[in-house]
Amino acid sequence: MAGNTFGTMFKVTTFGESHGLALGAIVDGCPPGLELTEADLQRDLDLRKPGTSKHTTQRREPDEVEILSGVFEGKTTGTPIGLLIRNTDQRSKDYGNIKDTFRPAHADYVYDQKFGFRDYRGGGRSSARETAMRVAAGAIAKKWLKQRYGIEIQGFLSQLGPIKLDVKDLSQVYENAFFSPDPDAIPELETYMTNLRREGDSVGAKITVVAKNVMPGLGEPVFDRLDADIAKAMMGINAVKGVEIGDGFDVIEQKGTQHRDEMTPEGFLSNHAGGVVGGLSSGQDIVVHMALKPTSSITVPGKSINRQGESIDVITKGRHDPCVGIRATPIAEAMLALTLIDHLLRHRGQNADVTCETPIIKGQA
Amino acid sequence: MAGNTFGTMFKVTTFGESHGLALGAIVDGCPPGLELTEADLQRDLDLRKPGTSKHTTQRREPDEVEILSGVFEGKTTGTPIGLLIRNTDQRSKDYGNIKDTFRPAHADYVYDQKFGFRDYRGGGRSSARETAMRVAAGAIAKKWLKQRYGIEIQGFLSQLGPIKLDVKDLSQVYENAFFSPDPDAIPELETYMTNLRREGDSVGAKITVVAKNVMPGLGEPVFDRLDADIAKAMMGINAVKGVEIGDGFDVIEQKGTQHRDEMTPEGFLSNHAGGVVGGLSSGQDIVVHMALKPTSSITVPGKSINRQGESIDVITKGRHDPCVGIRATPIAEAMLALTLIDHLLRHRGQNADVTCETPIIKGQA
Amino acid sequence: MAGNTFGTMFKVTTFGESHGLALGAIVDGCPPGLELTEADLQRDLDLRKPGTSKHTTQRREPDEVEILSGVFEGKTTGTPIGLLIRNTDQRSKDYGNIKDTFRPAHADYVYDQKFGFRDYRGGGRSSARETAMRVAAGAIAKKWLKQRYGIEIQGFLSQLGPIKLDVKDLSQVYENAFFSPDPDAIPELETYMTNLRREGDSVGAKITVVAKNVMPGLGEPVFDRLDADIAKAMMGINAVKGVEIGDGFDVIEQKGTQHRDEMTPEGFLSNHAGGVVGGLSSGQDIVVHMALKPTSSITVPGKSINRQGESIDVITKGRHDPCVGIRATPIAEAMLALTLIDHLLRHRGQNADVTCETPIIKGQA
Amino acid sequence: MAGNTFGTMFKVTTFGESHGLALGAIVDGCPPGLELTEADLQRDLDLRKPGTSKHTTQRREPDEVEILSGVFEGKTTGTPIGLLIRNTDQRSKDYGNIKDTFRPAHADYVYDQKFGFRDYRGGGRSSARETAMRVAAGAIAKKWLKQRYGIEIQGFLSQLGPIKLDVKDLSQVYENAFFSPDPDAIPELETYMTNLRREGDSVGAKITVVAKNVMPGLGEPVFDRLDADIAKAMMGINAVKGVEIGDGFDVIEQKGTQHRDEMTPEGFLSNHAGGVVGGLSSGQDIVVHMALKPTSSITVPGKSINRQGESIDVITKGRHDPCVGIRATPIAEAMLALTLIDHLLRHRGQNADVTCETPIIKGQA
Repeated sequence: MAGNTFGTMFKVTTFGESHGLALGAIVDGCPPGLELTEADLQRDLDLRKPGTSKHTTQRREPDEVEILSGVFEGKTTGTPIGLLIRNTDQRSKDYGNIKDTFRPAHADYVYDQKFGFRDYRGGGRSSARETAMRVAAGAIAKKWLKQRYGIEIQGFLSQLGPIKLDVKDLSQVYENAFFSPDPDAIPELETYMTNLRREGDSVGAKITVVAKNVMPGLGEPVFDRLDADIAKAMMGINAVKGVEIGDGFDVIEQKGTQHRDEMTPEGFLSNHAGGVVGGLSSGQDIVVHMALKPTSSITVPGKSINRQGESIDVITKGRHDPCVGIRATPIAEAMLALTLIDHLLRHRGQNADVTCETPIIKGQA
Repeated sequence: MAGNTFGTMFKVTTFGESHGLALGAIVDGCPPGLELTEADLQRDLDLRKPGTSKHTTQRREPDEVEILSGVFEGKTTGTPIGLLIRNTDQRSKDYGNIKDTFRPAHADYVYDQKFGFRDYRGGGRSSARETAMRVAAGAIAKKWLKQRYGIEIQGFLSQLGPIKLDVKDLSQVYENAFFSPDPDAIPELETYMTNLRREGDSVGAKITVVAKNVMPGLGEPVFDRLDADIAKAMMGINAVKGVEIGDGFDVIEQKGTQHRDEMTPEGFLSNHAGGVVGGLSSGQDIVVHMALKPTSSITVPGKSINRQGESIDVITKGRHDPCVGIRATPIAEAMLALTLIDHLLRHRGQNADVTCETPIIKGQA
Repeated sequence: MAGNTFGTMFKVTTFGESHGLALGAIVDGCPPGLELTEADLQRDLDLRKPGTSKHTTQRREPDEVEILSGVFEGKTTGTPIGLLIRNTDQRSKDYGNIKDTFRPAHADYVYDQKFGFRDYRGGGRSSARETAMRVAAGAIAKKWLKQRYGIEIQGFLSQLGPIKLDVKDLSQVYENAFFSPDPDAIPELETYMTNLRREGDSVGAKITVVAKNVMPGLGEPVFDRLDADIAKAMMGINAVKGVEIGDGFDVIEQKGTQHRDEMTPEGFLSNHAGGVVGGLSSGQDIVVHMALKPTSSITVPGKSINRQGESIDVITKGRHDPCVGIRATPIAEAMLALTLIDHLLRHRGQNADVTCETPIIKGQA
Repeated sequence: MAGNTFGTMFKVTTFGESHGLALGAIVDGCPPGLELTEADLQRDLDLRKPGTSKHTTQRREPDEVEILSGVFEGKTTGTPIGLLIRNTDQRSKDYGNIKDTFRPAHADYVYDQKFGFRDYRGGGRSSARETAMRVAAGAIAKKWLKQRYGIEIQGFLSQLGPIKLDVKDLSQVYENAFFSPDPDAIPELETYMTNLRREGDSVGAKITVVAKNVMPGLGEPVFDRLDADIAKAMMGINAVKGVEIGDGFDVIEQKGTQHRDEMTPEGFLSNHAGGVVGGLSSGQDIVVHMALKPTSSITVPGKSINRQGESIDVITKGRHDPCVGIRATPIAEAMLALTLIDHLLRHRGQNADVTCETPIIKGQA
């Protein structure tokens, strides 16, 4: 079954390979009447964009998105929104040498097994470049959630390798290249990354994303639980290997008396649950953490095999982020927004703001 | 959108409340020709069944499943399999007093917000009793995966509160009430649980589940990744707050040189990835961990509110497991089986074993 | 992909074979708060029930439906509704002789090609007996549509073989065994059917179903058009070979000036469109016609082959309706109701009546 | 729920308005390894293209399609195929005057009711221009069906207004502007159309489409029947008001002895069923007919209302086909191809040709 669509009511389908002609997406199910221009998408795309600092891939592309449909006179029409970004800086010849090679920890081997062959240029469809489209679609969702319900979504880097970051000032997150909520830690992060690049190695990271002002009762009780759909959304981001809601793995050692979030007329007394109980939102902040593995493309040689099954040594050249986790912050925000808008539209319907229940023509033939 | 269905090609839909007349499921998409009787399902149901030890709920029900359709002359027909378990030991009057009360960490409040009211008897649809049907459906999937592809799925308890369990002897997992892979740890587990019950408290747990002999290439590259669908399946189990594939949250501090699983003609040299790369299976063991929160129903009084928004104190009586994680092992096995069979049938089709491509009648009118 | 589910927001999944233990369904997505008892379903089931007149199959079953879940204190809870009808009058030995035989115009041959073998007793899953579950689920949809929006759905027999029926008195439709809207035509219908049974032959029929008071704007512009979904629903009824909306095949010879439904402030001046324009409801009556083929089970011998591909002569014994179209009226009503409720819930959401947007607990932790 | 996607395994999602910047589609689920270039799509697009004869709209666009992804070194990769056609000849100012007007038989009124407002330029999303994308996607499906299974799909005009066309020479269908299978009837068709244009009126049409060499057993028994999905596909084409499989509405007056297709070891003796029995393909030709209403855009004035509910007279100017049915032939072919490939991939899986069951790496870590 075709697997490139996310969501049911607010449905995002993407296409495009890293070194193909273009990336694109169709956003189907956006409610009509939302004011929308390319600039609304560009802000988030620029946050994710490569080449913004020396700590991320040196590929430089404007990543300019074009809205091809679904907007008329500045407002969404309720029909599908077509999005397009042309690729401009593909250096595909960098990749000719990996045509018959399976790089360790890359999707090379598994793509070959699944599809019989692969577009090896820059990882093809497995490249994180595809996530640009998720960010663009997520920006639409974020705008609607904010305008219509005051829901705000904010992500940040919470750990880079061994360096844990405190949440000191969320307003600084988009002001630094690390999405760090602790501006004071930036020199330490920079030193760490510089050393890492020198070694030709890479490192993992932890990202946190929070949604505020979500009403209670969103989600479904059994399979399509809100937390289950969040887990799918986050584990579906390239390089993610773990997802937590609220206290996550810390709950293993918690007692019931300690974990439960007691309620008073003034509100909850704690938020160990991370805003989801029984598969439904509780009205508290939804808090999600995720772990991202170290970038697979590193220059330290590694053992592998080729398509003929022979032993080889592999060095991955090209332009890569030594820590893919850094740029994952806007992607995680986008995926949480897409999950929330989908459940919100399940609840309230696609067009509940519109007045088809009060017809202009009353009579019948 | 209705949310009680899991899967696309092998589709499981469940119904039933804890204290209603019955639990049931429809398993749609099981390939034809699989030998199947109630006994195949009963073994796993008995493992999940309450009342099997003093450490789990004292509700006692035979949980006898009936296959109502989809099997003819001992074999699946390819048409939907109807499953039914009648409830027999509902003591609903135990729950009358919580009708207007929201128990902390329960789904009471969020159900009321979503549905306007709720079946409060035993948690209604939010009760873990619903998972019996997942276990029954999972048993069908497990049998087919084993017979047709040799795929084996094995879960176990890896941590209970502070007690971490070593994998000493997997053959002992189903022989003890804790699903412990370390038979020597059982006395310690029993003492811990006895004390816990005495305190009227509960505790969290960690479960691991492994799939062996999965071929490489199952999954989809972008949204419907195998790991994303596993994350959804696991986070959708009651009480789960975190999911990891392979090294999970340990990847945060790993270097690329350390994390990558190098390949040789004889096989991979490690399995940090946990059997999934780029959203597709690698052919290695698929390794999944999950964290389960402590049981919410405890007898230590807690602060809460009622439907009128007034402050109250709550004690949860009834028959409950002090550690819901213990009985989650067969549920996690079932959910992994359901995820794998769904992706396998996407890959190979629902009826690829059958010969419709060689028609009995050749000619046309 | 598993194919036994209808709908997306109001999702009906059925199971059961003609001569198995039971028929059942899960109705997932019914909004909470609808008053519902078995009696609400039984009325429509009784209309479809076999053995009610000498002109339909003589199989006699009470077809008593049991609601197993999803209703609490007389009201739907928003969780899945499990439905069950036990089979009681299966005379399976009647069918032993067709085990290796493909009856012409039956699903025998195609089932064998698809599944490799089949439950041959009474047609197994291909029996129209399965439609009892659609009628039961449809009765829930009809009740909600009526109560919440005043939408009424009415079907009737519009032609039986060569006999065309005028719409003289819709209130008489459920009062006669033919669902005839013309009570005066009943003697002619009875004579025709008696002769037909004497010949051992069968005949086709035309059914019409109308929905009143549907608001304008339901449906989707492109693929999931309201008319497209109605066509799928109706063509999915056993024996249906043609579906029309409004003027249907008569439009071929119509001019644009003749076909277009002109509008005035007082209403439309005609309803050639049958209530659907551009894939969306217009607010006029939705008018659907369908053609049903003659019953395939007849006693006149016919040429066929057996599983070995050898030539044989076939006579179909058993208890059969000489005109399957007659009993299709309540099925067509049910399928139109299921299509409309699904689109209505897409529009307005599953829980838009419920107040999750005004939380009881205001504060956050 | 978003409604712009067709199919489940071979999933086509389209975007674009008549007078927007572009039309586009994502084809997700095309098996890997199919040789594909723009030229494969362009042939069918040219058949549907406006401006090819004086009997169709005089809008002139090259309709040049660009493949943006999913093809590498001339072959499909199994990843989504992005398709794009830029609009070039939009004369939007022609439509300014209908901004506040509801044209009879157009989607103007119902779009306004559903979405609250509409892109009125050229009908926006309701324009048949959207079908260009279905034709492009269908061309991919047709090529795969032909190459892999020898399945051939052929449509033709079977009636235009009162003129019924005999199937004299199918090889001539694409050689004349009417898709007529009777080349001798072309002068009559031309005269009829010329008079029609002179009157400023329009007329309906009947289209037939046939699939040859489909194996028996494709489809599903109950809801997702092959005939039900074909009915949805065809009724989803703009202007279609009726769909028949095989004998269609003629079955009403047929006897069972007449309708049933008897079988012999040499083949079926007739094809009244039109190649689908019990929801599954029989191996015979699949024969589908559909009725298309007359073009709504005509220059004869008609009564209508405006957005304020006031009475007005409407004349539709612009460039329109007096018979939309004529250009529907390639669209119907595309929709039948998309329905068949979807069911075929359900049966045989998305990647069953690929060898992931024989892994290159045998060992495990």
